[in-house]
Amino acid sequence: EIVAAVQSALADGPLKGRRILVTSGPTHEPIDPVRYIANRSSGAQGTAIARALAAFGAEVVFVTGPADMPAPGGVEVQRVETAQQMLAACETALPVDAAVCAAAVADWRVASASPSKMKKTAGGLPQLEFAENPDILAALSQRAENRPGLVIGFAAETDDLEANAAAKLKRKGCDWIVANDVSEAMGIMGGTENAVTLITQSGTERWPRMSKYRVAARLAGKIADVLTGSD
Amino acid sequence: EIVAAVQSALADGPLKGRRILVTSGPTHEPIDPVRYIANRSSGAQGTAIARALAAFGAEVVFVTGPADMPAPGGVEVQRVETAQQMLAACETALPVDAAVCAAAVADWRVASASPSKMKKTAGGLPQLEFAENPDILAALSQRAENRPGLVIGFAAETDDLEANAAAKLKRKGCDWIVANDVSEAMGIMGGTENAVTLITQSGTERWPRMSKYRVAARLAGKIADVLTGSD
Repeated sequence: EIVAAVQSALADGPLKGRRILVTSGPTHEPIDPVRYIANRSSGAQGTAIARALAAFGAEVVFVTGPADMPAPGGVEVQRVETAQQMLAACETALPVDAAVCAAAVADWRVASASPSKMKKTAGGLPQLEFAENPDILAALSQRAENRPGLVIGFAAETDDLEANAAAKLKRKGCDWIVANDVSEAMGIMGGTENAVTLITQSGTERWPRMSKYRVAARLAGKIADVLTGSD
Repeated sequence: EIVAAVQSALADGPLKGRRILVTSGPTHEPIDPVRYIANRSSGAQGTAIARALAAFGAEVVFVTGPADMPAPGGVEVQRVETAQQMLAACETALPVDAAVCAAAVADWRVASASPSKMKKTAGGLPQLEFAENPDILAALSQRAENRPGLVIGFAAETDDLEANAAAKLKRKGCDWIVANDVSEAMGIMGGTENAVTLITQSGTERWPRMSKYRVAARLAGKIADVLTGSD
């Protein structure tokens, strides 16, 4: 009841009337009908962000790869498998006021995925040729038409977190990067907490380690500030 | 209550005192800390088989890769990620009266998985060198010591189902193969039904399409017949 009361109080929230795209989960890139390449992503952070934005009153389009967890309620869900499908679903969702690209999109796909199952016996080890996948964050950030007012990317890094994330911000042309350290010692992958650094064109904020729900709520609050001009 | 009554009636079932190994789910083979290669497998069929064997009174060791569904209750669960870990867990489980190898084990792993995240910017497309994974079905089937009395493999095929499955039976040295057609037209991958062909050294049985639970119950019944000498 408390949750329902809060949600109904927020339905008229600061993001009422704003349309926001959130990508979430991994992509799966087929090798053949039974094998694929994937990124580790439970979809937990993207799902929490979509839920927080919806609770703030936004109309959320949630484009998700095959994630471990159910999509949040109260949002428009578009399910995809590959990076190419995810880009198409994002472009279909435009125009939006903001885009939060939390999906762990595979950088590469297998150039010539086999329509039949590759046989183990047919000539030893496989030779896979790769092709570069579309870069969804860069594509949304660099659009001439219908560029979202605010584009937020994520960077999962194991080394040189801030330098790599700042370089990514510049290279992609997005507005903010939410960077996190996924080295094994942090124990974040697949867990319930996250320790992120928010990088914007004006500086860097190191947020303390907190639950993925609190990261989502804080990020949604900052998005609301920017979109409503209170920042 | 009906389920509980059936289970308690069966706890003294035909497989009481028999120890059976069941492998299930996919394996994930790391490329780097965030990327991996996987086989499509929900774990649904292996989970149903473990549950049916336990309901028949067997002591079940359930060795599972990262599957979509929870492990059944009342069995000993060993969670693994890679094929090498799965083989080790199977060997630790021996001796067993029967082994049902329902996992979709990756045939190959990446020979030199990177300890750091591969950067998209560092020199274009990746070159992955593969190494052959241990063949768990063959390893169990061909053991000199502690070979399970009955070793059952699975074959997911898209072409020439029976010929490929019969060749696999011979090549691996297992006793039965449960073959199924995973071509897209069948719509079986990830679904709730299965259409299998059981291949033994004495012949072939085509089972009609039925729920994965019914496939599991029928297979458990045949295992009980063989282990108790009623076949």
